[in-house]
Amino acid sequence: MEGMPFAATEYDQRVARVQARMATEGLDALVVTNPAHMNYLTGYDAWSFYQPQGVIVERTSSMPLWIGRPQDSNSARLTTRLDEEHILTYPEEWIELPAHHPAERFASCLAERGWGRGRIGIEADSYFTSPRFFLELRRRLPEAELADADRLVAWVRAVKSAAEIQYMRAAARIAEAAMTVALETIRPGVRECDAAAEIVRAQLRGTPEFGGDYPALFPLLLVGPRSSASHSAWTDAPFGDGQPVALELSGCRRRYTAALCRTMYLGAPTSDYRRLADVVGAAHAAALGAVRPGRTCEEVEAAWREALRGTGFEKESRLGYTIGLSYPPNWGERTASFRPGDTTVLEPNMTFHLLGGIWLGSFGYELSETIRVSEDGVESLTGFERRLFVRA
Amino acid sequence: MEGMPFAATEYDQRVARVQARMATEGLDALVVTNPAHMNYLTGYDAWSFYQPQGVIVERTSSMPLWIGRPQDSNSARLTTRLDEEHILTYPEEWIELPAHHPAERFASCLAERGWGRGRIGIEADSYFTSPRFFLELRRRLPEAELADADRLVAWVRAVKSAAEIQYMRAAARIAEAAMTVALETIRPGVRECDAAAEIVRAQLRGTPEFGGDYPALFPLLLVGPRSSASHSAWTDAPFGDGQPVALELSGCRRRYTAALCRTMYLGAPTSDYRRLADVVGAAHAAALGAVRPGRTCEEVEAAWREALRGTGFEKESRLGYTIGLSYPPNWGERTASFRPGDTTVLEPNMTFHLLGGIWLGSFGYELSETIRVSEDGVESLTGFERRLFVRA
Repeated sequence: MEGMPFAATEYDQRVARVQARMATEGLDALVVTNPAHMNYLTGYDAWSFYQPQGVIVERTSSMPLWIGRPQDSNSARLTTRLDEEHILTYPEEWIELPAHHPAERFASCLAERGWGRGRIGIEADSYFTSPRFFLELRRRLPEAELADADRLVAWVRAVKSAAEIQYMRAAARIAEAAMTVALETIRPGVRECDAAAEIVRAQLRGTPEFGGDYPALFPLLLVGPRSSASHSAWTDAPFGDGQPVALELSGCRRRYTAALCRTMYLGAPTSDYRRLADVVGAAHAAALGAVRPGRTCEEVEAAWREALRGTGFEKESRLGYTIGLSYPPNWGERTASFRPGDTTVLEPNMTFHLLGGIWLGSFGYELSETIRVSEDGVESLTGFERRLFVRA
Repeated sequence: MEGMPFAATEYDQRVARVQARMATEGLDALVVTNPAHMNYLTGYDAWSFYQPQGVIVERTSSMPLWIGRPQDSNSARLTTRLDEEHILTYPEEWIELPAHHPAERFASCLAERGWGRGRIGIEADSYFTSPRFFLELRRRLPEAELADADRLVAWVRAVKSAAEIQYMRAAARIAEAAMTVALETIRPGVRECDAAAEIVRAQLRGTPEFGGDYPALFPLLLVGPRSSASHSAWTDAPFGDGQPVALELSGCRRRYTAALCRTMYLGAPTSDYRRLADVVGAAHAAALGAVRPGRTCEEVEAAWREALRGTGFEKESRLGYTIGLSYPPNWGERTASFRPGDTTVLEPNMTFHLLGGIWLGSFGYELSETIRVSEDGVESLTGFERRLFVRA
């Protein structure tokens, strides 16, 4: 293993916390395919998630098992502290074959280790556990009970360690640098792709002290009518005059993400648009002010909703979500969200992307920070002037 | 819809070809979640695949149905020619809830349209059809038959149209520009992340005539010992002297990908390493020379294997795979591969990434081109000097 991002004891604690939840759920083993979860538990880091891979956590062992392609096993050796007995591979020729599936190796491993009649958790709503993977496990482990443990590891990740927060602070510095470049670069006549190029360059360069990792999402540059389409791609058309550009980007450091949204207006904003920006700014501030330990997620959202009341604007989608360690294609942790009905109680060192985005029929506006629930309130990890940026 | 990449007739032909395969498989409807397939059939383009979405192709209609989040429906309006009746949404509050899953909307749509007792194809090994998605469909459509049609659309995509080849040529120009920047930038003392930043900048800037889209994979810079770990991430350490750097990157134009691999050596290569480069170069040339219509994929691989015989080197993994329209996290089409046992017969306008990569215990070497099977042989879409690049 190379220099791992965390001390060995921190990985041990993570595995122990997962095992404690497994005990509550009555699980003998847990098949983890989410690459963020694999990294969290072992340090494993490679762009190998496009082929089947995973780690298995057993209730009886503090060392997970890694299973993947032979050609990726060196990444397991380089980035984890797993010993050779815990690095397993499936035959390279099983890749993308109708006749075999790498899940067979997971099944045989589970059977060999005595879990053929056990209760086995799977991440049933992960990008990297397919129906085929699930059905192979079920077919080859007919006496095992497969249970959905989709967010088990995600919930263990909810409260960050001091070391994790440090990486998120570093990621926030990168996000701010990238946003600065975005605001400097975007102007009428510049091609959208050229602005995206400068933004991503800044994301990867990071700072003189630390570099950037690849972000979980490419930056979103939502221009003009596309500011109403929240995940649209850039084009190679030049920016025009008299249009908003909503920017959603991130910094990534040792796979920890800080996300940041701001909106520019090229030319003089309409009074309606200025009003939208003012309303969102005030409501975002109200929500931020409502964050503190002991509050629930829905109470934070209620503060935003209350601030919007009577303005004519409303937000259908949630106001934010947990964020931390991430891989493409998603930087959210898929646990707590700021929305009605989410009664998750905030604890210190939970981290969220608090995103006040409103998308209307023909335009949108976004303002966000990546925040930490502090001991007595909130700390904004990202720090950037909170306003509409007008480029006249 | 904005300027779509292809004529309406081309989309109609694609849907018709999918319907012809559906007829062969006895499918009434097909639930497509692979974003490359969604784009292929409708033009839909957004980074929204991190939440459940899909298109449904019915045997009775030439217009697919799009189902996704409300906030992404404007992307469907902007990037497809689907009418309002074919753009459906699920409630925003179903996102990431244990109690509901967006697959419910797919099930209700299929039932409403009369397929509750039909035979319905799903992409059972796609990143974006989860076991939960599959189980919800099965639970809510108890009288339907769910069939695995994982690669149905992928096989329809295998032979490219003239317009698709044009986008791949453009992507190849971008890949070459990015490789040129990589070779100019990488040297001892430069941080890996800073080199990655310049490479990705070149990928997005594209050319003065056309810009680049986000690539399906970030570039891989496999340095020193990590050149033996085929998908490892860059770090912020400076490149050292006396080590290989394997480069795997791409250009992307209207989501069409051309991939390109070359290897550098910083300092004077060892004679063993030079020999590896020579052997791979000759074997790659042998494989390239074996490509022509009527040959099978395994025959191409056999030419490579024959060239390696007696050299002491061998390649466990496949020599290449189909490539074209792609989204993160994978640029492969997951159909034909150059490997023993693959008897797919080559046809004009099939496109492959022919990747002669050998990863040994402690180092590796990569050389590739993105190729088109031509009318009487092969055309390399990417064009870049095929050799080991030494930076003394």
